[in-house]
Amino acid sequence: MYRLFEFPRSGNCYKLRLLLTQLDEDFEGVTVDILSGASRTPEFLAMNPAGKVPILEIAPGDWLPESNAALWYLAEGTAYLPQGRRSRAEVLRWMFFEQYSHEPNVAVARFWVRFLGRPPEMEDRLARRIEGAHAALRVMEQHLAEHPFFVADTYGIADIALYAYTHVADEGGVELAGYSAIREWIARVARQPGHVAMES
Amino acid sequence: MYRLFEFPRSGNCYKLRLLLTQLDEDFEGVTVDILSGASRTPEFLAMNPAGKVPILEIAPGDWLPESNAALWYLAEGTAYLPQGRRSRAEVLRWMFFEQYSHEPNVAVARFWVRFLGRPPEMEDRLARRIEGAHAALRVMEQHLAEHPFFVADTYGIADIALYAYTHVADEGGVELAGYSAIREWIARVARQPGHVAMES
Repeated sequence: MYRLFEFPRSGNCYKLRLLLTQLDEDFEGVTVDILSGASRTPEFLAMNPAGKVPILEIAPGDWLPESNAALWYLAEGTAYLPQGRRSRAEVLRWMFFEQYSHEPNVAVARFWVRFLGRPPEMEDRLARRIEGAHAALRVMEQHLAEHPFFVADTYGIADIALYAYTHVADEGGVELAGYSAIREWIARVARQPGHVAMES
Repeated sequence: MYRLFEFPRSGNCYKLRLLLTQLDEDFEGVTVDILSGASRTPEFLAMNPAGKVPILEIAPGDWLPESNAALWYLAEGTAYLPQGRRSRAEVLRWMFFEQYSHEPNVAVARFWVRFLGRPPEMEDRLARRIEGAHAALRVMEQHLAEHPFFVADTYGIADIALYAYTHVADEGGVELAGYSAIREWIARVARQPGHVAMES
């Protein structure tokens, strides 16, 4: 049985909980309180030296960090990851976009606002993150204006990766009002079979 | 024939030039001068709405952005990407680590120092990036102290992804003197068959 080391209100962790649920996989969630340093202990760093959740424990002692790598691992051979070489590269294209252009802005803004209480001395940095978030959202909006999902017109792990933080972007001061295609896609993702909400 | 839209002194672009060369693939390099706005034109944004190089043109009108997605596409079916499901997830684990924890620090510090001339008003931000770079390098050092390469003890695209900016980290004020395993790995990568240097 898989074990998922997670901080439940983290979007990166939610990605795996959502896919595991949709795949109907048995798994045990293990809460790691990142706000009180639990991801910096020697035991945790032995599982992931980068000190980040989530970690997917595939078997005792076999730990896979990085949410999108674990999504890929779990989705292999299922309908959530297409088979064709070009489509699979497109899945990765959007997952790398997510980790480079989207998450560091959308998710970090949310972390600073929601979990750190928007410290006044970080307003300049927050403004840059919110600006970067809108740049990423514009790229998504343009794509979703012409496609129901990110790759091959089918719901899959690229959608899961991008949904996790997009649907709670407003918690970081990133308003979605101007992005109608994104809002329709969010509703479409939430209607997929087996969908579960993120812990709020 | 592939076309590679690239800024030659970019590590992300160099990743693809290096693998294409090692695979002995015919390709045409097309220089995009990102410093003068060439990645912000309507023609460029039609290829990649995120406005970033590199882009791998697979066929006329078929453009694949994101360096690590393009590495994966090119390496599929070759010795640069292992076959096993778990090893492939490990390749992705290190490539997502690269784009999330390594490149935004090591590469951005280099960009600000080398290409923007280290603007004094950015010193605080630069210091945070250099600190983040060392955190990423410590993770790499720990892994490389026990392994010759990142995955399956074999040179592959995870090494290419991490080599691109690591071997020029000093250009961003990130000294490698304290990382002996990384320095040995850099020398090992440079000895691989078909290796080509990055444009300096």
